[in-house]
Amino acid sequence: MERLKQKIVAEGQVLGEDILKVDGFLNHQIDVKFMEEIGQEFRARFQDVKPNRILTVESSGIAIACETSRYFDYVPVVFAKKATPNTMAEGCYSAEARSFTKGTVSNLRVSKRFIQPGDQVLILDDFLASGEASIALTKMVRKAGAEVVGIGAVIDKAFQGGGDKLREMGCRVESLAVIRAFEKGQIIFG
Amino acid sequence: MERLKQKIVAEGQVLGEDILKVDGFLNHQIDVKFMEEIGQEFRARFQDVKPNRILTVESSGIAIACETSRYFDYVPVVFAKKATPNTMAEGCYSAEARSFTKGTVSNLRVSKRFIQPGDQVLILDDFLASGEASIALTKMVRKAGAEVVGIGAVIDKAFQGGGDKLREMGCRVESLAVIRAFEKGQIIFG
Repeated sequence: MERLKQKIVAEGQVLGEDILKVDGFLNHQIDVKFMEEIGQEFRARFQDVKPNRILTVESSGIAIACETSRYFDYVPVVFAKKATPNTMAEGCYSAEARSFTKGTVSNLRVSKRFIQPGDQVLILDDFLASGEASIALTKMVRKAGAEVVGIGAVIDKAFQGGGDKLREMGCRVESLAVIRAFEKGQIIFG
Repeated sequence: MERLKQKIVAEGQVLGEDILKVDGFLNHQIDVKFMEEIGQEFRARFQDVKPNRILTVESSGIAIACETSRYFDYVPVVFAKKATPNTMAEGCYSAEARSFTKGTVSNLRVSKRFIQPGDQVLILDDFLASGEASIALTKMVRKAGAEVVGIGAVIDKAFQGGGDKLREMGCRVESLAVIRAFEKGQIIFG
């Protein structure tokens, strides 16, 4: 997605070896108009699938998932939670995921009411790095007897291997911007 | 907002003395079409203000803020973070807020780049209870030399006093559904 690459180059900032900071439009401040373009692009990439649910992880995936839902007939968005508030005591699916940027391990949870057997689930997230979050979501979907019809990432740091792992698990992965490497603070797209 | 009250009655669940669970459409699964209606209603309530930024807190406020942004000429959405990932090392405004449902204290943070002196900020959130989150956001906005032009809550548990505290701080508060009490598991609207 050319517009996305341009925006990453214009507004993104490479930190150290492997972190790309895009908090000006994606995961702290959100450019909602641009998120609509992201949603339309996911619709185009996944035009042959018919999800009845979009699944993501709090927090940065939520805007992306909502802005994509409208191009898939407003299917419900579900976001996995990283902690268990006391309003979520009932049965949940859960799976562990390491956060690449935070260096912590989260226990992701989704209420069993919101993934049903037979569901066709489209998984979306802002970043695909080592794939921990998407792998955890995929495990929960499969545990529920539902199917992952696709995994969409806005930015794929392909050199961290997450996409390959997901493909080995039999998932179709579509990334809107693929990054092959960071070289001396420059972004090399794949 | 009549449709909201109907949805709360039809799908909400009162837990104990003071918790309302609406995770089927608002804060775990999201009904995006309905969030658009919420956004239009906030536009109508705040038709006389001209925010250049919408501020909320992760995670449940994000969908609401994004769906409202489109009715305010797509002004940028900024969400305060509850933790500090290592991509957010630079200068931040911060303020403490107790989470009513989680029983924890969070340190809310917003990058100084995303609230500028003179900004006209509309604060939005899913729940208004004791007001901790909105008070913390208001403090950060004022610390930045910006102005809170309004505070919008989807569901206001007025008996917990948050709205009154915010009005005492000089804020205009608009709540789309005001709850006066829970009585024997029933919701009494104000």
